[in-house]
Amino acid sequence: MFKAEIYVSYKPSVLDPKAEVIKNTLARIGDDNVATVSVGKYFELTLTAPDQAAAEAQVDRICDEMLANVNTEAYHFTVKALEAAQ
Amino acid sequence: MFKAEIYVSYKPSVLDPKAEVIKNTLARIGDDNVATVSVGKYFELTLTAPDQAAAEAQVDRICDEMLANVNTEAYHFTVKALEAAQ
Repeated sequence: MFKAEIYVSYKPSVLDPKAEVIKNTLARIGDDNVATVSVGKYFELTLTAPDQAAAEAQVDRICDEMLANVNTEAYHFTVKALEAAQ
Repeated sequence: MFKAEIYVSYKPSVLDPKAEVIKNTLARIGDDNVATVSVGKYFELTLTAPDQAAAEAQVDRICDEMLANVNTEAYHFTVKALEAAQ
């Protein structure tokens, strides 16, 4: 069993109004030392796979095909083997 | 300068229909070895602070006050010092 942690966020060139709203609101309530904000999505998947490489290849394909909009979003992920006892 | 990476996701007891839809759709397109899916939000903040402890305390407060709905969501975060050169 493998556990994948996947982070999807906008590419740097894409305007992110949600992040701007958070940054401006933080400044308004006194947290004006926050310099940058970015907002993204976080996915956790557990899956069975014959080995680490197969799990990584499948997670990469799932990101491309479903979890990320590759036109505007970038993703990165980590895959870890889970102990059999878990 | 400190960088905070914040993960917000539903508490385990809260039903997450979006995660269920992803899991069912993956099974339909052949990825039926994916056992569990969870969906959350991911935030990156950079901020200035006198020290690590102050940065962590502020990020914790920001999560409580703005980024997470503490009734239904749990959060965890890491705070790292950035090199001055960055």
